[in-house]
Amino acid sequence: MNVNGKHYRTIWLKENDASTVQIIDQRWLPHQFVVEDLCTVQEVAAAIKEMHVRGAGLIGATAGFGMYLAALHAPEDDFARYLLESAEILKATRPTAVNLAYACHRQIDAIAQVDTRAEKIATAREMAQRITDEDAEFCRRVGENGLATIQAISEQKNGAPVNILTHCNAGWLAFVDYGSATAPIYAAHDAGIPVHVWVDETRPRNQGARLTAWELGQHGVPHTVIADNVGGHLMQHGEVDLCIVGTDRTTRTGDVGNKIGTYLKALAANDNGVPFYVALPSSTFDWEMRDGVREMPIEERGGDEVKRIQGLKDGEITTVLLTPADSPAKNFGFDVTPARLVTGLITERGVCAANEEGILGLYPEQRKN
Amino acid sequence: MNVNGKHYRTIWLKENDASTVQIIDQRWLPHQFVVEDLCTVQEVAAAIKEMHVRGAGLIGATAGFGMYLAALHAPEDDFARYLLESAEILKATRPTAVNLAYACHRQIDAIAQVDTRAEKIATAREMAQRITDEDAEFCRRVGENGLATIQAISEQKNGAPVNILTHCNAGWLAFVDYGSATAPIYAAHDAGIPVHVWVDETRPRNQGARLTAWELGQHGVPHTVIADNVGGHLMQHGEVDLCIVGTDRTTRTGDVGNKIGTYLKALAANDNGVPFYVALPSSTFDWEMRDGVREMPIEERGGDEVKRIQGLKDGEITTVLLTPADSPAKNFGFDVTPARLVTGLITERGVCAANEEGILGLYPEQRKN
Repeated sequence: MNVNGKHYRTIWLKENDASTVQIIDQRWLPHQFVVEDLCTVQEVAAAIKEMHVRGAGLIGATAGFGMYLAALHAPEDDFARYLLESAEILKATRPTAVNLAYACHRQIDAIAQVDTRAEKIATAREMAQRITDEDAEFCRRVGENGLATIQAISEQKNGAPVNILTHCNAGWLAFVDYGSATAPIYAAHDAGIPVHVWVDETRPRNQGARLTAWELGQHGVPHTVIADNVGGHLMQHGEVDLCIVGTDRTTRTGDVGNKIGTYLKALAANDNGVPFYVALPSSTFDWEMRDGVREMPIEERGGDEVKRIQGLKDGEITTVLLTPADSPAKNFGFDVTPARLVTGLITERGVCAANEEGILGLYPEQRKN
Repeated sequence: MNVNGKHYRTIWLKENDASTVQIIDQRWLPHQFVVEDLCTVQEVAAAIKEMHVRGAGLIGATAGFGMYLAALHAPEDDFARYLLESAEILKATRPTAVNLAYACHRQIDAIAQVDTRAEKIATAREMAQRITDEDAEFCRRVGENGLATIQAISEQKNGAPVNILTHCNAGWLAFVDYGSATAPIYAAHDAGIPVHVWVDETRPRNQGARLTAWELGQHGVPHTVIADNVGGHLMQHGEVDLCIVGTDRTTRTGDVGNKIGTYLKALAANDNGVPFYVALPSSTFDWEMRDGVREMPIEERGGDEVKRIQGLKDGEITTVLLTPADSPAKNFGFDVTPARLVTGLITERGVCAANEEGILGLYPEQRKN
């Protein structure tokens, strides 16, 4: 997507330097646009853990490039073990995101197919690029497949703007390009369908207020930032036509792990008859998991992310304390929305019901599990 | 309640100066404890509108004192009209809060009963004090009446801490003393029942993170600050034994107007079988209103309260920008929780079901409506 009119992806190999991966360091958005160099798997792991990059697809793509950097620097005599250890380091950075394991395992499998060190490095580079390209292409198709839903509402409303609520950032900044939840929105906007997005600010890290608002603004999509508390009120009063969110892990039964607070919006949508869609490339399915609420690991981060917040003051990025200094805080990163609250899943292969039958209808190759 | 070990109410007449009302200017909490002098009805109106004081009961008490100051300064030849205009100014400051109208009308009715200017001023002073004392006394009784519910859960848990989630600040800072939602919590804590409070930070103005956390901390009640997004996840995992919130206006049918986001927590409580109580002195009932979602006026405040936030930086209170500078924001102050989601109302007369029959059982004098 565009940044000040220039096309960017969220991750790429540095021009004329195939040993350096470049990312947009998202910690400083929307106030500063910073590109960061990553040269080792340790730097990649830190960038994921400290959320220079975040979001289901982008975490996967970054891990894919991390495994490539691992291959590049692996000692000749201990290549396989170094790679496995690197995968463990990467997978440990964010416990809820399934794309991490997906990318690491694809790399390990692909690298094991070839023999020489040079071949392994070339394969890892190719696979990192393939994971990245697939992510962008899958998101593009998610957009195509979600477009009809928005178009139908637009026709019902005789062309009045379709009001779409989203939570967190499942935009192109969370993937390689297009985004998941935002892909149908961008597709509709680009097709000339009037849309307006309610952007949940998404405390504590404000990915909505910082990232979604910024990328929608850069692309010219009308939007309004709201506190996370507001969505229920808007739905009670007919101000939301549909919700579209992303996911960090969705079970084969359709339970949706996503940014903390998603469950509350799904409850409100259900209570008010508002369609609640989850958009995801299939890399985000966890084909082994059946009960999201019971089984999904939920990342707990430091309480300081709740107690303090970062913003702009006199042109400088500044952190302020919000609470009494001695009040403790807890910080859960995700929650699980039970499948019963989800109207449908928008995938790169089409839209399906959020249950095992619907999902396996689109992904029959997973029936073996 | 106590501030650094000294007892305070949230509003009082200045010692040795009955023409000055004093309040705690809550805008600077928890970082600074500031007492402010109010000398005219215009200053009182500004203090309510700009939220130096806030909360159902305290707004009513402040309006009561505002009407006393109006009487003190009313011109002899135009006394009645000046008082009515003052009431209109006060009622216009916060459209959702029913206690404003309640306090103003009680003052106008009382003042009309006496003849001379001196008598009217004395009556207004007396009535302001009575509204204030009643608020404190009603909250104390709300605490007594809610205690049994907490005690019963404590017994079921064999004395393990009772986890109570609250939203916004319905603490003593929102009333004259004790609070509404916090009154049963303070009563339980003071009775030696182990309690722990999940404090929703309550964006955009963070009354939970700033005020509830501060007053619980001052009173020594164990608590943890969480983002507003977290409550659903906690309830899914058995980490909340009950919810208690306040209200700014409750209909005679039990629909609860309260700080934006309350409805989302009530949905989550309902979905997880967690009891959801609303605590209120009867001054907060709107006896005329039957359908809260349709009829209740919802205050809309400036978008800047969403886009910017205030906190402490190097010992100074500092405001930072959270969003892209040109992204618009909307800011609804309240939502309405339908009575069907409310387990019970805790009032100064006892606990009742959140429906007309239950409420009128405690307040039979309102059957005439």
